[in-house]
Amino acid sequence: MSTKPSIPQGTRDFSADVVRKRNYILTTIKSVFELYGFQPLETPAMENIETLMGKYGEEGDKLIFKILNNGLNDPKNIDKAKAGFAKVLEGKNSAALTERALKYDLTIPFARYVAMNHNQLTFPFRRYQVQPVWRADRPQKGRYREFTQCDADVVGSYSLMNDVEFALIYDEVFNKLGLTGYELRINSRKILSALAQACNAPELLVAITTAIDKLDKISLDKVKEELESKGLTAGQIAIIENYVTINGTNEEKINQLNVLIGHIEDAAKGIEEINMILEHTKGKNVTVDFTLARGLNYYTGIIYEAKAPAEVSIGSIGGGGRYDDLTGLFGVPGIPGVGISFGVDRIYDVLEALQLFPANLNISTKVLFFNMGEAESRYAFGIMQQLRSAGIACELYHKTETKIGRQFNFAEKKNIPYAVIIGSEEMKQQACQVKDLATGKQETMDIDSLIHFFTHQ
Amino acid sequence: MSTKPSIPQGTRDFSADVVRKRNYILTTIKSVFELYGFQPLETPAMENIETLMGKYGEEGDKLIFKILNNGLNDPKNIDKAKAGFAKVLEGKNSAALTERALKYDLTIPFARYVAMNHNQLTFPFRRYQVQPVWRADRPQKGRYREFTQCDADVVGSYSLMNDVEFALIYDEVFNKLGLTGYELRINSRKILSALAQACNAPELLVAITTAIDKLDKISLDKVKEELESKGLTAGQIAIIENYVTINGTNEEKINQLNVLIGHIEDAAKGIEEINMILEHTKGKNVTVDFTLARGLNYYTGIIYEAKAPAEVSIGSIGGGGRYDDLTGLFGVPGIPGVGISFGVDRIYDVLEALQLFPANLNISTKVLFFNMGEAESRYAFGIMQQLRSAGIACELYHKTETKIGRQFNFAEKKNIPYAVIIGSEEMKQQACQVKDLATGKQETMDIDSLIHFFTHQ
Repeated sequence: MSTKPSIPQGTRDFSADVVRKRNYILTTIKSVFELYGFQPLETPAMENIETLMGKYGEEGDKLIFKILNNGLNDPKNIDKAKAGFAKVLEGKNSAALTERALKYDLTIPFARYVAMNHNQLTFPFRRYQVQPVWRADRPQKGRYREFTQCDADVVGSYSLMNDVEFALIYDEVFNKLGLTGYELRINSRKILSALAQACNAPELLVAITTAIDKLDKISLDKVKEELESKGLTAGQIAIIENYVTINGTNEEKINQLNVLIGHIEDAAKGIEEINMILEHTKGKNVTVDFTLARGLNYYTGIIYEAKAPAEVSIGSIGGGGRYDDLTGLFGVPGIPGVGISFGVDRIYDVLEALQLFPANLNISTKVLFFNMGEAESRYAFGIMQQLRSAGIACELYHKTETKIGRQFNFAEKKNIPYAVIIGSEEMKQQACQVKDLATGKQETMDIDSLIHFFTHQ
Repeated sequence: MSTKPSIPQGTRDFSADVVRKRNYILTTIKSVFELYGFQPLETPAMENIETLMGKYGEEGDKLIFKILNNGLNDPKNIDKAKAGFAKVLEGKNSAALTERALKYDLTIPFARYVAMNHNQLTFPFRRYQVQPVWRADRPQKGRYREFTQCDADVVGSYSLMNDVEFALIYDEVFNKLGLTGYELRINSRKILSALAQACNAPELLVAITTAIDKLDKISLDKVKEELESKGLTAGQIAIIENYVTINGTNEEKINQLNVLIGHIEDAAKGIEEINMILEHTKGKNVTVDFTLARGLNYYTGIIYEAKAPAEVSIGSIGGGGRYDDLTGLFGVPGIPGVGISFGVDRIYDVLEALQLFPANLNISTKVLFFNMGEAESRYAFGIMQQLRSAGIACELYHKTETKIGRQFNFAEKKNIPYAVIIGSEEMKQQACQVKDLATGKQETMDIDSLIHFFTHQ
């Protein structure tokens, strides 16, 4: 029963070098979250199916991975399972067939957690969460069916200082990763709402934002065509054209917006939010972009989008915003919040493209002890244990190998920087040969010097 | 559409304090794995269903969580899906209904990975893997449907030094965790095999080991009854009784075994393996236990079982052993190995019971800055950013609160050890009040001293 093994489409194995690079990104992000008082949360991979269904729109529902109930062929389950299967074929859910599903994002499980535990939690509640999610999307370059999301949210507070802190978190994370050329675009949903009011068409807010959102992909003319097809008049489209062509420095843009729609209360509020962020992020790469819309309709205040440095054409590497009601869907209304996420896979690609991963990330084993015979390696093993006690990772080559080149070869393939060779002669003299495999430099040391050499590098 | 939220039976949310405690365990184990040259590997949660089915016995197959294919109600899939569902009701698999499943352990995905990549890997290949697995077991105390496994294996080497190193890894991990009263029991499958030969019943090896394996749960008399029911003669049972009643120090046990079955080649080999481990683990808690059998039939040499300190009745907290053929099932024969795993949930329970978690594990935010007004908190925020740059985690209370007790209350609930209070008076003098919330001690400092106070603790 031998099968040629493979893994599911859209999933990946992460070998050691990739795990280390991913951990470098995730550890950097987590450490900054912690500096700002965020606490870790982990929720299960599986959620009850009713927790997830209906939360991501009709398209989202189709992309949720559902888990088949076990024991369907148990005689006491068969009839119910058959009825359940018939419902599934009609595009409905059936608990008789599937009660559980894999989580699709981290926001809904977080909302479910807050709703379940709101009596025990201390608000404002700051959590970060770094876990895989699953989507039955068609796999393509950079899009996977299993991928890691990396979110932070503060809930239970209207304070704009939270919104400010997220802008600073983006700045700090990207600087720590060496992505000094990042750009953080900000806008406020209140301003988009004011635009719809200025057009006397608040009911067309979604149509207007959806069209504007496409401006980085299609031309202004095409956007205008789309607005026309949605029933907007020439006058309304002219206002929108004036709005989307606002340009200049952040200050100039805000002045132009003020002239255009500053008389509308929502616009004034939005400008106040944006000014608050700008005041606290002087000298950082924050750009006001009134065309920034972001798809999710639950945003109500500041929205963010982080862009990779322009020299790589990778685009968005993070985003987020403020929302009014996290847990209402789960019967607990009145918990507002603000949150952001980092696009881990894309940040990985950016760091790779710009060669920003630290060079020694993939050094784990520091020393390979050569195996020069049974007695010699027994002696070497005692020294290895001393090094390990001192925190130096080492390995013994697994067998006596007369062709010493093979042992060098092994060290090289495994990216191990030092070889220690203890033959019978060295053993007699309680000494060893230490070879730096990068430079080729080799020296003889006594054992104490060897320990000192590696522990004081 | 408001539903009272819950999570699937047998799954858990991990809040911050639990995440930190779990990470403390996992980081300790990983750091020791790395000292011994092991490299991280991560495989997807989902595997192709044929990778998993048939690998864990009939009972195991039933406990695998299978993922329903998406788009079953798409007209082009419906007929196939119906046929597939009929097969599932017969207890068979159908790719038309389910192509993927959640991984059940880390060994089979590791074997699949090695088989897929054996041409690129450098052998001996040392990997560790710490990931969740899923089993549709009936949930009960200490048994979950989603839980973390923590494995390390070396494959592609027959060297007994690998087996020795795993015993040392257990010792080092448990000592680092403060579990100095752990016990590591070892045996060799070769010795059990020799016992079956001594009974002239090599074909009854599985029956004999299965019965012996129950000795820590049922009495010797019951084990003898079971052996009789499996068709063993009184003479055979007498040999087994002599074997299982071997006792004394490790040395005494080995001497008794030698007298009993030392003439059989497999026993001699097994004793050689055990002596090799004992030689390198002098002074450590390694106990030879010839009744140790371990269920999995693929073990062929040394087997290990780690027991929690006797004062907690938690039992096994780890186990493993040597096997001959990791990847044969996937068409790549001839890769032997040895591996161990740690029972993370049980280790957690032991550390909790013995109060061995470090006391300050749950301190994340070090300082709460009180919010004493808009101007004051703007001033405080600048100081907070200096502290954060120096790596000190801090938070600003989210709103101006005239009842200052509420701010103290928040700090206490969140386990934040220090409060910094900057009112209008302090602001004028560029000073602040620092209060140690554990001792109640409060002092006035200038800002430079404040930074120094927290960065030089």
